Amino acid sequence: MKAAVYLGNRTFTTGTSEPLAPGPGDVRLHVAYCGVCGTDVHIYHGVMDGRVGPPKIIGHEASAEVAEIGEGVEGFAVGDRVAVRPLRFGTPTPFDKGCSHVGKNLQFIGIDTPGAMQSSWTVPAYTLHKLPDNVTLLDGALIEPVAVACHDVRLGEVVTGENCVVIGGGPIGLLIGLVAREKGARVIISEVNPARLQLAEQLGLSTINPSEQDLVKAVAAQTDDAMADVVFEVSGSAAGVEAMTELPNVRGRIVMVAIHPQAKPVNLFKFFWSELRMIGARLYEPQDFEEAIELIAGGRMAIDSLITQVSPIEEAQRVFETIDANPAGMKYVIQCGE
Amino acid sequence: MKAAVYLGNRTFTTGTSEPLAPGPGDVRLHVAYCGVCGTDVHIYHGVMDGRVGPPKIIGHEASAEVAEIGEGVEGFAVGDRVAVRPLRFGTPTPFDKGCSHVGKNLQFIGIDTPGAMQSSWTVPAYTLHKLPDNVTLLDGALIEPVAVACHDVRLGEVVTGENCVVIGGGPIGLLIGLVAREKGARVIISEVNPARLQLAEQLGLSTINPSEQDLVKAVAAQTDDAMADVVFEVSGSAAGVEAMTELPNVRGRIVMVAIHPQAKPVNLFKFFWSELRMIGARLYEPQDFEEAIELIAGGRMAIDSLITQVSPIEEAQRVFETIDANPAGMKYVIQCGE
Repeated sequence: MKAAVYLGNRTFTTGTSEPLAPGPGDVRLHVAYCGVCGTDVHIYHGVMDGRVGPPKIIGHEASAEVAEIGEGVEGFAVGDRVAVRPLRFGTPTPFDKGCSHVGKNLQFIGIDTPGAMQSSWTVPAYTLHKLPDNVTLLDGALIEPVAVACHDVRLGEVVTGENCVVIGGGPIGLLIGLVAREKGARVIISEVNPARLQLAEQLGLSTINPSEQDLVKAVAAQTDDAMADVVFEVSGSAAGVEAMTELPNVRGRIVMVAIHPQAKPVNLFKFFWSELRMIGARLYEPQDFEEAIELIAGGRMAIDSLITQVSPIEEAQRVFETIDANPAGMKYVIQCGE
Repeated sequence: MKAAVYLGNRTFTTGTSEPLAPGPGDVRLHVAYCGVCGTDVHIYHGVMDGRVGPPKIIGHEASAEVAEIGEGVEGFAVGDRVAVRPLRFGTPTPFDKGCSHVGKNLQFIGIDTPGAMQSSWTVPAYTLHKLPDNVTLLDGALIEPVAVACHDVRLGEVVTGENCVVIGGGPIGLLIGLVAREKGARVIISEVNPARLQLAEQLGLSTINPSEQDLVKAVAAQTDDAMADVVFEVSGSAAGVEAMTELPNVRGRIVMVAIHPQAKPVNLFKFFWSELRMIGARLYEPQDFEEAIELIAGGRMAIDSLITQVSPIEEAQRVFETIDANPAGMKYVIQCGE
């Protein structure tokens, strides 16, 4: 039973995954695949060491098979194929207003507690979502990022016929585009990286390269001057924040998906003038996982084309080095099973 | 028939109000009272001369009696007492999505077209809302700012039991507080001016002076750590923008009421982390006027205590000078009738 152990200082080593007998309410899993998230790359860069506390097994985009069942767990059997919603809920507070997925005492599994880049992994049973037979374990590792996109699109209240602009065409940006298209929206991806633009076009999404075209004029042209009903800011860039208020029409919604560690100048006048709205969106709720599974089972998401590379767990170090060297890459997946 | 004519350069003169026969769909009014809005003060300061184009009769917080009725106008009779919703709708565009009150081709009456600081005023009949018998014409001049508050509270979706913090205790801030209280919310006014704080307390609203207390800690103390469900940013200040993201709880709403001409740094991370929402709010829709009239007719708004001074139209110049000299003043009203 192997593990990729993050040691700090951009270093992974291959260690041992000690099977941890599941306590009451828990389930032990044989992890099949674990996708690498942008957050994992941040961890690798050392910027989250204070929270992560290396040495630590990270990873949270997992598919798995149930290996062992703890006391009191119902509804799951050994051998069940599952995706994991990596949220360990803490004691609720009045501040949380029942939104446990962003509650004050939430622990994120794979950051705050040991993650999925190991063969054997023990998690609360309430984190599990069963995979239908026609969803492979490899695709199962993409349920988590697709659930992020489902959450973002749901909070953006995208409906049929709306114009959506996604600022930033990385994995989450493209998945948001695909999910929004499933809602019947017309989707435009704004992205500067040619390889990502090419992939977006292969997926049938409209694209604009704002380093080559005036983004506002291009969106106006593609929408017959109606502009965007919903803008997803996924870039995390100052240019994205500047653009996000230029694109919406009256009562247009801006979904804040990206993490902006520093305050950035925002055109608040536009919020007033056209009654814009901004909606922060983080992680997911159970229904987002269910929707993600349904979308992937329906075969309409073409998510396989987002998988750049699948690598054995022993190569974790090289995978993170490759990601750093290849900004056009999309989803890297680590095979965790024996 | 008199008028207060804005000449530019902080100067009003008393001129003549020429009765303008109402065209089809229009109504000529005898204006009773016209309140002075912060926007009028901006105009007086000359910063909007390009849009206003002095010499111009301004003013848009009006009560009036119907004096003459144009062709095709139904539902109004000479002598009807009315408040005026000072919006002249232009040709709708797809960008507007049916929100004519903030549409691209909207004209604001009293800025873009002649306003209410005159005895005789001709406006479209669709701008009129009848006043019930128990609403005085003086109170009728406050319907417009109360409608602003009703719009802000409605877009903020305030419900019973919620904690609301209003940043900025000027006339609109206090009216938002009073309207939110009518919805069953607990309201805290954050304001630095002692006279405004005193008035807020007289109105029965909780107050915090952020120049004397730590605002975040004070809101935590007053809400048992639940913090704010809704924050209204009415201050227009950088400090207000900084505070607005510190106060909301999970999925808390920030209603952007103030006009921020320059982009300001906003803590976008908080939007992501606690799934905050920001809602731009501008002007009003017909139902906001109806609600404002109902609230004032119900006698629960204590709006008379917000009236600092009532002055005859000949004294318009002195009124604007007084407003500039008295930052603690609230609502100044000009008597426009003969």
